[in-house]
Amino acid sequence: MKLQIAMDTLSGAEVLHLLERVHDVVDIVEIGTPLILREGLAPVRAVKERYPGLTVLADTKIVDGGRLECGDAVAAGADIVTVLAAADDATIQDVITAAHEKSRFVMVDLIGRADIAKRAEELLALDADFICVHTGVDAQKSGRTPLGDLKTLVAAIPPECAAVAGGVSPASVRQYAVLHPGIIIAGGALTGAQDPRAAAAAMRTVLKEEERA
Amino acid sequence: MKLQIAMDTLSGAEVLHLLERVHDVVDIVEIGTPLILREGLAPVRAVKERYPGLTVLADTKIVDGGRLECGDAVAAGADIVTVLAAADDATIQDVITAAHEKSRFVMVDLIGRADIAKRAEELLALDADFICVHTGVDAQKSGRTPLGDLKTLVAAIPPECAAVAGGVSPASVRQYAVLHPGIIIAGGALTGAQDPRAAAAAMRTVLKEEERA
Repeated sequence: MKLQIAMDTLSGAEVLHLLERVHDVVDIVEIGTPLILREGLAPVRAVKERYPGLTVLADTKIVDGGRLECGDAVAAGADIVTVLAAADDATIQDVITAAHEKSRFVMVDLIGRADIAKRAEELLALDADFICVHTGVDAQKSGRTPLGDLKTLVAAIPPECAAVAGGVSPASVRQYAVLHPGIIIAGGALTGAQDPRAAAAAMRTVLKEEERA
Repeated sequence: MKLQIAMDTLSGAEVLHLLERVHDVVDIVEIGTPLILREGLAPVRAVKERYPGLTVLADTKIVDGGRLECGDAVAAGADIVTVLAAADDATIQDVITAAHEKSRFVMVDLIGRADIAKRAEELLALDADFICVHTGVDAQKSGRTPLGDLKTLVAAIPPECAAVAGGVSPASVRQYAVLHPGIIIAGGALTGAQDPRAAAAAMRTVLKEEERA
């Protein structure tokens, strides 16, 4: 299980600053959608230049122009690119082809989809590398979590291809880790923590414990 | 009917260069999703600074973090912000609230949705300003056009709230204009034309003719 830290509300400069403290206690650094909206792919490029060995995910949430947008993200240094499950299969296929040509990976985001098991099987058939259940920050406000969706997902596909995002925190991470998804994503619970390094290390410890369990 | 030019494959600098030639023959300038992915909101800011009176649409395709992302786009100068119909209603509501607080507008993009009439009615109830049927560039490759979807849309909502995108060109624009949508969007057919000014002026002439018809 890998721990992914999502950088959504920080600036590119703040991301570099935070990474000085946490780069060795996380597995994947996500340049989040709101940050890409504000600054484009520059933060992807900056993080990859500073930490060439770190896995960088660009949360592009592609929904059209698959080859163009994925190609740009890969050229900026993204190791993993995201596409929405809501996109046309032609778009998803183009993103996967463009990423795999350069030996990069694709995460498909199921945000907003109700047909998790059926869509996940279709996405796996399209050769997606990771499929992510995702309760958005706006949906979280009404108390929703992605736990039930993750249970559905790991019953439908190999758990190592599953990812989960949506309010996961040091307090709740074990509930997710017992399901053994390939990637667990945490955002505000890490970037907003008093001690982000300690919070990330604590989450990673839980992942390691559950891997051995 | 308004003519919107979508700037997808150009750089921010190229957009400014093209606008010197076409700014007075289009109604709305769209900073396209691929351009935002590459450069963030900087091109929105640059166009609005150079042409304060021109309506600028930021094709943000928001799917989560509605208040944050819409707020950033509005702060950069966007007059119209886009959100996906696939997003959670909580997100769409937040985008609309954030935009209307600043007297800006929201276009909801139906890309990938099959339930056009039903979803459009829901979106109108959420107070969306424009609802767009959209055949993506990847879906266009298999010959699809948004004409049938636009017919469905204008039968379900007031036509002035309807928008259409997906391969519309000077050759095909009249088929769309006879349906009197509020906004007709053209991208590559204008930005890739030998003479973009002549192509835009020709399309706008058709819109005016059909308005009078």
